Amino acid sequence: MAQTELADFPLIAAIDLGSNSFHMVLARVDHGEIRILERRGEKVQLAAGLNELGELSEEAMQRGLDCLRRFAQLISGLPDGAVRIVGTNALREARNRAQFIRQVRQILGHRAEVISGREEARLIYLGVSHTLADDAGKRLVVDIGGGSTEFIVGERFESLLRESLHMGCVSYSRDFFADGRISAARYAQAYTAARLELMNIEQAISRLGWQEAVGASGTIRAVGLCIQAAGRGQGEVTLEGLQWLKRKVLKASHVDKLELDGLKPDRRPILPAGLAILEALFDALGVQSMTHSEGALREGVLYDLIGRHQHEDVRERTLNALVERCHVDLEQAARVEAKAISLLGKVNGAWGPFDAKQVELLRWAARVHEVGLDIAHNQYHKHGAYLIEHADLPGFSRQDQQALALLIRGQRRNLPSAERLSEFGDDSGWLLRLCMLLRLAILYHHIRGFQDMPALTVEAGDDFLILNFPDGWLESNPLTQADFAQEAQFWAKIGYTLTVR
Amino acid sequence: MAQTELADFPLIAAIDLGSNSFHMVLARVDHGEIRILERRGEKVQLAAGLNELGELSEEAMQRGLDCLRRFAQLISGLPDGAVRIVGTNALREARNRAQFIRQVRQILGHRAEVISGREEARLIYLGVSHTLADDAGKRLVVDIGGGSTEFIVGERFESLLRESLHMGCVSYSRDFFADGRISAARYAQAYTAARLELMNIEQAISRLGWQEAVGASGTIRAVGLCIQAAGRGQGEVTLEGLQWLKRKVLKASHVDKLELDGLKPDRRPILPAGLAILEALFDALGVQSMTHSEGALREGVLYDLIGRHQHEDVRERTLNALVERCHVDLEQAARVEAKAISLLGKVNGAWGPFDAKQVELLRWAARVHEVGLDIAHNQYHKHGAYLIEHADLPGFSRQDQQALALLIRGQRRNLPSAERLSEFGDDSGWLLRLCMLLRLAILYHHIRGFQDMPALTVEAGDDFLILNFPDGWLESNPLTQADFAQEAQFWAKIGYTLTVR
Repeated sequence: MAQTELADFPLIAAIDLGSNSFHMVLARVDHGEIRILERRGEKVQLAAGLNELGELSEEAMQRGLDCLRRFAQLISGLPDGAVRIVGTNALREARNRAQFIRQVRQILGHRAEVISGREEARLIYLGVSHTLADDAGKRLVVDIGGGSTEFIVGERFESLLRESLHMGCVSYSRDFFADGRISAARYAQAYTAARLELMNIEQAISRLGWQEAVGASGTIRAVGLCIQAAGRGQGEVTLEGLQWLKRKVLKASHVDKLELDGLKPDRRPILPAGLAILEALFDALGVQSMTHSEGALREGVLYDLIGRHQHEDVRERTLNALVERCHVDLEQAARVEAKAISLLGKVNGAWGPFDAKQVELLRWAARVHEVGLDIAHNQYHKHGAYLIEHADLPGFSRQDQQALALLIRGQRRNLPSAERLSEFGDDSGWLLRLCMLLRLAILYHHIRGFQDMPALTVEAGDDFLILNFPDGWLESNPLTQADFAQEAQFWAKIGYTLTVR
Repeated sequence: MAQTELADFPLIAAIDLGSNSFHMVLARVDHGEIRILERRGEKVQLAAGLNELGELSEEAMQRGLDCLRRFAQLISGLPDGAVRIVGTNALREARNRAQFIRQVRQILGHRAEVISGREEARLIYLGVSHTLADDAGKRLVVDIGGGSTEFIVGERFESLLRESLHMGCVSYSRDFFADGRISAARYAQAYTAARLELMNIEQAISRLGWQEAVGASGTIRAVGLCIQAAGRGQGEVTLEGLQWLKRKVLKASHVDKLELDGLKPDRRPILPAGLAILEALFDALGVQSMTHSEGALREGVLYDLIGRHQHEDVRERTLNALVERCHVDLEQAARVEAKAISLLGKVNGAWGPFDAKQVELLRWAARVHEVGLDIAHNQYHKHGAYLIEHADLPGFSRQDQQALALLIRGQRRNLPSAERLSEFGDDSGWLLRLCMLLRLAILYHHIRGFQDMPALTVEAGDDFLILNFPDGWLESNPLTQADFAQEAQFWAKIGYTLTVR
């Protein structure tokens, strides 16, 4: 393939750092459609390397990084924005994930994001829905992962309900079949544990209703293949097939003896747990039969990626829904956003350069900075940060939400501390500066659109910023002057000089 | 007055532990109307006793307690529910308030509640609105307190907007006129500080609009009286009168020399700061003239109190609005509430007796236990607790909100720790037990109304509880059995035995 073809059909890639396996897909975009060029998957079993303290073992991290070194060759040279790397449950739980993510970046040259269970569910549905016929009925989609299981009810390309439960084939294997022995009692324990988890969501799913059940994970495919290899069906999982397989599994009495046609040896250790979860969800949700789809999280990530480039960014829709639900003053938010971006343009030389993702972050922060007012006026910056950090925000990674929350929290009173900033990496000076720009924009529009504000010139350096108002303007607007004088005191506390004249 | 008359016209009392003064009103209720029998007020200046660490000095507390000992005589013997004691800004800020509140209870025999600034605003409006003619226009009501200033826009008896700002005549006197000297520069500083605070709310107030401005505090009455004594008007505060008084005050150059007709000597030290705040709010809100109303916080507390007894409890309305806004499943909440109250009835002998306020708290907790789902499913008990603790909930004291938040937080996973419980006093075992009852009710209805649940019998003792299901029911409902078995493990962690059989 010549270089020109690449330019005509840009390559994009998605990597899914799953709890059981890592997967990569490389694709090209052709008239808005995705053509998969390459798929890779390796069973890394990251979740099996989580100890009781919630730390990933060195060996588990090494297995993961080795796998990514092999993936790296295929995506080396892809530009920013063409690759998205998402981590799921094992990385959500790993306390030492920052270390792993840093090394991922060194190897792949792109930043890995950890996504929430519900965001994972949204992306899985996006992937699955693109592989299915575009009929009008509602679908139940289930993905049994290594550390979590996602449930989605959706219609066409839209997910209506997204849930994620803390149960997966790797974690349940560790909890109930650690030494590989299989017994009816152990199986029953795993099954009951799964049923208890399912109680949190089963009514919501049955209230919404669905016509077709689709599975999207190695466990469900493997179970379907075993059933098919025994001459029962075409690869779909049925209640009757499940019961048959369960008897076979219990009879084997140890995972090493699970010699079933259609089952790869590396899946043996996690089959009993996966089967118990699958049986539990069949019973809890009243599933009779479940087909399997090859589309999954990584395909969803690809579709989400091209959506962003084609101005269908789901994050925009998410924030619009949030500000509406929280009764944000949209005009004020728009004024602050425009001013923040204009200030950023003026200091981009001295304080930047800021990349596209950072500019986007400032935009978002300006748009949602007042959401906390919906909880209470007192300390609304804190309430806003809480909402942004904890709400289910489709399209956003956890890091996005945390960075956004930091900006919202830092919009007034004290600027973020060095300690707090260090959680965002050694080089998080850009985040502090975004926060400063947001604050200046808010102060500039403190008198909400009731006053015509003058144009400013700005000078900035390593530890200072100067705002120049037109001659005499500040003297005749002493409130704005006092407002910025107060702000200068907050800047001084962290070693920055703000001069307003 | 004979004892029989008292029974016919029950006495009620309200005490307002203000930052500047403590006030008490004693009234009798006559056909739903309040007849004031007695008013008392003493300038305690609690806010002046707050040090930089936010702690009340021993002397300030002593001044307050001495005053309450004098009040105590008048209300001794009034039953529970007939007295309400509210603390405002100085107590909101005092880190050592628990100590003071404990002593208040010893002296008065009733529990003092600390209320939020917005709740204070709501009650002030309720008091003021009962003293004004019942016309249809919107009113702006302002109360300049010792440590905070409340702003309300309301119509008839309904407040439409409630705000509270951190500025008051005692705290501003300490910040800007600490040694009693008065200068134009100091006055300008106080004025500007007030204007900056006002910027947070002035647009919201002007957007809503109002026809009449009413003041409800000692500062505003004193300023009006000074202006009237100089032959300018009938006691209302006007822009022109304000300017005249400001010149007089600046000329005096020290608070000791503020000899003005109409001004009591004990108000001299706080007049300059109060005047600066009043001028700032006239300018910021475009007020031309402000009348004074004798109704205030303590009258509002009385009207709120009789409302509660006449089934117009504003707290009910508040919770209804909250659960609606947060899309709570009302049927499930009602099921859990009924079950919780029924369980409480069954253990009232062994675990109680629970008083009416405690029963009410359990009802509220059941009703709102799922509000956190509106933020995210993951950790929704924590989100719910955050909302309940921080939201502006008209009618609730801070302690109410904190106790409710504790129950919501403790509805699943770990039970509240002894440390957390100790914040609610030495004898907070009842709160833990309410939490346990709430959890049992939630588990009992874990399968949301899709299943007919059997009747239970309950046995309870100091550190155990036994739930008896009908014979054989648990065996045929193994999920419920597993659910309660899991719950028993949480109870065991804190030394309680839960037996389900």
